[in-house]
Amino acid sequence: MIELFPRALSAEAFAPFGEIICLDDAEKLSINQGLTTRFHDLFNIDTADNGGRTIVSVFRTEPLPLPHRIEIMERHPLGSQAFLPMDDEPFLVLVAGPGDEINTDSLMLFKTDGHQGINFFKNTWHHFQIGLGKTRDFIVVDRGGDGANLEELKLDQTILIPASVMTQL
Amino acid sequence: MIELFPRALSAEAFAPFGEIICLDDAEKLSINQGLTTRFHDLFNIDTADNGGRTIVSVFRTEPLPLPHRIEIMERHPLGSQAFLPMDDEPFLVLVAGPGDEINTDSLMLFKTDGHQGINFFKNTWHHFQIGLGKTRDFIVVDRGGDGANLEELKLDQTILIPASVMTQL
Repeated sequence: MIELFPRALSAEAFAPFGEIICLDDAEKLSINQGLTTRFHDLFNIDTADNGGRTIVSVFRTEPLPLPHRIEIMERHPLGSQAFLPMDDEPFLVLVAGPGDEINTDSLMLFKTDGHQGINFFKNTWHHFQIGLGKTRDFIVVDRGGDGANLEELKLDQTILIPASVMTQL
Repeated sequence: MIELFPRALSAEAFAPFGEIICLDDAEKLSINQGLTTRFHDLFNIDTADNGGRTIVSVFRTEPLPLPHRIEIMERHPLGSQAFLPMDDEPFLVLVAGPGDEINTDSLMLFKTDGHQGINFFKNTWHHFQIGLGKTRDFIVVDRGGDGANLEELKLDQTILIPASVMTQL
């Protein structure tokens, strides 16, 4: 059995999997006669493969009951997928290393700082969204259009996010 | 002198100018083992002209001091531009009818209901974002890439949003 505990999300550690979306690091432009700061072009949208288009949705996510057994991971071979939280609470992000199989040693669980969003590169293995504590809304930027953009892989090993993770948030 | 007062934003009245972004009207998909409702594909992104690409930014907007004289309107000939509020307060949206000149009789001031976002069609004359009351964040989806995507037009007539509008919000 493997128990996963979150580490703080940093650009370096997350670099193989995607981008961190963070206003502090963004290009800042003063517009609208000085009344607005534009935090410009926050991440790289990669949705054009196979005639794809960019779509924007909202995910309203209930808390994931813990402990949670990780049974299935997923990836989107045709497009990036970004999550921008509408509030300022942390959430968890579970990813795994590259390749068509998942090496469970490569599973990495991250905790955002409450202000970070994330943008998965296409083809990055990840768990579906892990909300904790309360119902939350996220703006999601991903790909619409034809083509099979969801692959799922079942994990045989017993891999848990233990309930004690709640107290570490 | 013309004084502008806001009317409630409705899909019918806003139809010539753009789309209303509203979760209530969206297609709802149950995903993530039933833990997430996906409010799917909320508006039409139109950014591909002249090799454009979709970009996502955050606008952090200070309140517009009232009374405010409307001096300049703008439009984006190469792409749509969407505003999704990160909170649940109303904001104002000022638009004008089609054509290269602005007929001041066509100016329409709308007030959102606190949950609505908006997506301007490309080439729609509009005022820059009108935030009231406090500093607010909006997620903005518009176009990046080469080409002149900003036109501005100065209004000669005296057109005001009066201070009394504040008490009507």
